[in-house]
Amino acid sequence: MPAEPLTVAHVSESQLLSRIFPRLNTSASILLGPGDDAAMVAAPDGRTLISIDTQTQDQDFRLAWNSGYRTTGFDVGWKAAAQNLSDINAMGGQATSLVVSLTMPPATPVAWVEDFADGLTAAIVALGAPDCSVSGGDLGRGREIAVTVAVVGSLGGLEPVLRSGARAGDVVAVAGTLGRAAAGLALLESHVPVTEWTAEQRSLADSQCRPTPPLAAGPLAARAGATAMMDISDGLMRDAGRLAAASNAVFDFDPVALKGYAAALVPVAALLDQDPMPWVVGGGEDHGLLATFPADIQLPDGFTAIGSVQAVAGSQGDGVRIAGQAADTVGWDHFAD
Amino acid sequence: MPAEPLTVAHVSESQLLSRIFPRLNTSASILLGPGDDAAMVAAPDGRTLISIDTQTQDQDFRLAWNSGYRTTGFDVGWKAAAQNLSDINAMGGQATSLVVSLTMPPATPVAWVEDFADGLTAAIVALGAPDCSVSGGDLGRGREIAVTVAVVGSLGGLEPVLRSGARAGDVVAVAGTLGRAAAGLALLESHVPVTEWTAEQRSLADSQCRPTPPLAAGPLAARAGATAMMDISDGLMRDAGRLAAASNAVFDFDPVALKGYAAALVPVAALLDQDPMPWVVGGGEDHGLLATFPADIQLPDGFTAIGSVQAVAGSQGDGVRIAGQAADTVGWDHFAD
Repeated sequence: MPAEPLTVAHVSESQLLSRIFPRLNTSASILLGPGDDAAMVAAPDGRTLISIDTQTQDQDFRLAWNSGYRTTGFDVGWKAAAQNLSDINAMGGQATSLVVSLTMPPATPVAWVEDFADGLTAAIVALGAPDCSVSGGDLGRGREIAVTVAVVGSLGGLEPVLRSGARAGDVVAVAGTLGRAAAGLALLESHVPVTEWTAEQRSLADSQCRPTPPLAAGPLAARAGATAMMDISDGLMRDAGRLAAASNAVFDFDPVALKGYAAALVPVAALLDQDPMPWVVGGGEDHGLLATFPADIQLPDGFTAIGSVQAVAGSQGDGVRIAGQAADTVGWDHFAD
Repeated sequence: MPAEPLTVAHVSESQLLSRIFPRLNTSASILLGPGDDAAMVAAPDGRTLISIDTQTQDQDFRLAWNSGYRTTGFDVGWKAAAQNLSDINAMGGQATSLVVSLTMPPATPVAWVEDFADGLTAAIVALGAPDCSVSGGDLGRGREIAVTVAVVGSLGGLEPVLRSGARAGDVVAVAGTLGRAAAGLALLESHVPVTEWTAEQRSLADSQCRPTPPLAAGPLAARAGATAMMDISDGLMRDAGRLAAASNAVFDFDPVALKGYAAALVPVAALLDQDPMPWVVGGGEDHGLLATFPADIQLPDGFTAIGSVQAVAGSQGDGVRIAGQAADTVGWDHFAD
């Protein structure tokens, strides 16, 4: 009979923290780390970017999927870090620190929490945020697992790239993947058993559970003169609609470019009897970047042109088009049914 | 028949945000407010204090209490702001911004969320954090209400006051209230109906639901030369134990001074057939400050001496005493049973 796993109900908060701290990386940005009522982080240009994001069990992830895949603490830690690092990337900045609040049922194994801490660190290191480390946090009980991360970052003296700066004539470009996280989600929710997944299928599931925002691309875009930028977390069409609305412009996408992203997803779409295009235009959580650039500059490394910005004509309103036709804004809204 | 209240299930995320934003105050510290992937906050001395704290329904507050009191959105917003402002106060700093993540069931009334936003703003204004406003947030669904706030703040060029600096011979002092939040909690959980509460009893419940950390006292203490400081969130004895451990010292409290705090709670203690002293030494959530100062300086406004710091002698270990006798570290640990 296997031994009962050690759960968080069996250890004190300070004992749990003493298991977490050694698993976190360190960075020069942290002037004062965990242990006091607040941490202190360097803000060398006198400004701090800040964002916050929560993942809740059964809303943002399942612990067990139809496919048999079980979400690990490592996955949850990685994704929480990646989503927040992406928000700083989307402004053209570089993350300097995360603070992490983890709420969980008392029956949560201590090993799960250790794995979660390892996932945070692994994402920071693998995605390329060398100035960033966890400087503090909060642990608490709840009926479900919920993770909130707040991230601070630096622009290194650059101006932030906003959502509102796209101008008619600009090129619309993306960095990172489109549709892979949604394909991975479809696979996780399918009845294709995890034990039978190919390496490519596992990689798609990883895109959902451990997204890889292109952290070099944000600062490169800011330096290259991007006029507007955001990360694609709720789907290309929905997020493009937000960028278009903030900029009072129309975004027109090139269907050939979009189909290029779908082509790589055809095999798994066939397996699941689905259409890959909705994953590309409607799937969120890849955490790539959507940006606009003046037409006369060379796109920075990692960006691919997929459309253009057009002026709003008369009363037609803001919006998103594909080859000039109105596109449904397929995506994810947290409350709309 | 009363009309069904409008719930968050009936509105989109952007509609809900458009009801929240006008209820938030503004401050000069916010260089870029909500609407982009991250906000931008001034960090004039090149450093940012940061902390994070979560409140979860049925763990940190009840929506309905035995007394019949119903926790309002205003209460939850106020307390979330106050707890976080207190963490910056405890370092000797001043808060510059909050970012707020609110997770809630779809049946949550929109009016509750509006009340929550009003509570955030009211706390910021009433407690005296004029440089602080909400710069961003996140809304999501969950089975229970959970609020996570991250706060950033500035030291204005001062050095942070740490937990580790208390030295033998220092005076131990507190600012703010002791035991009132615990008395309020006992009252909320009692069967004394809210409809029969006196003004003083209502004020005690407010100490629990809408704590009032003394935000002027932290920066005053830092400037006066406080050697160690933290906020009292988990009870005087437990938090003093943490300060003593971090400073490798022993804290000895004056029972006469402690009894002074208990005296004011005698009437409600008698009503509830309880002893007020455990509220004073063990009750948390007043969010006063516990600080140590060199014995030869005048305590800053708002601080009252309640003990002294003594050296650790031989193998006796770190700890907390009352008149030289070992004190039980009564308090709250999130996981210990």
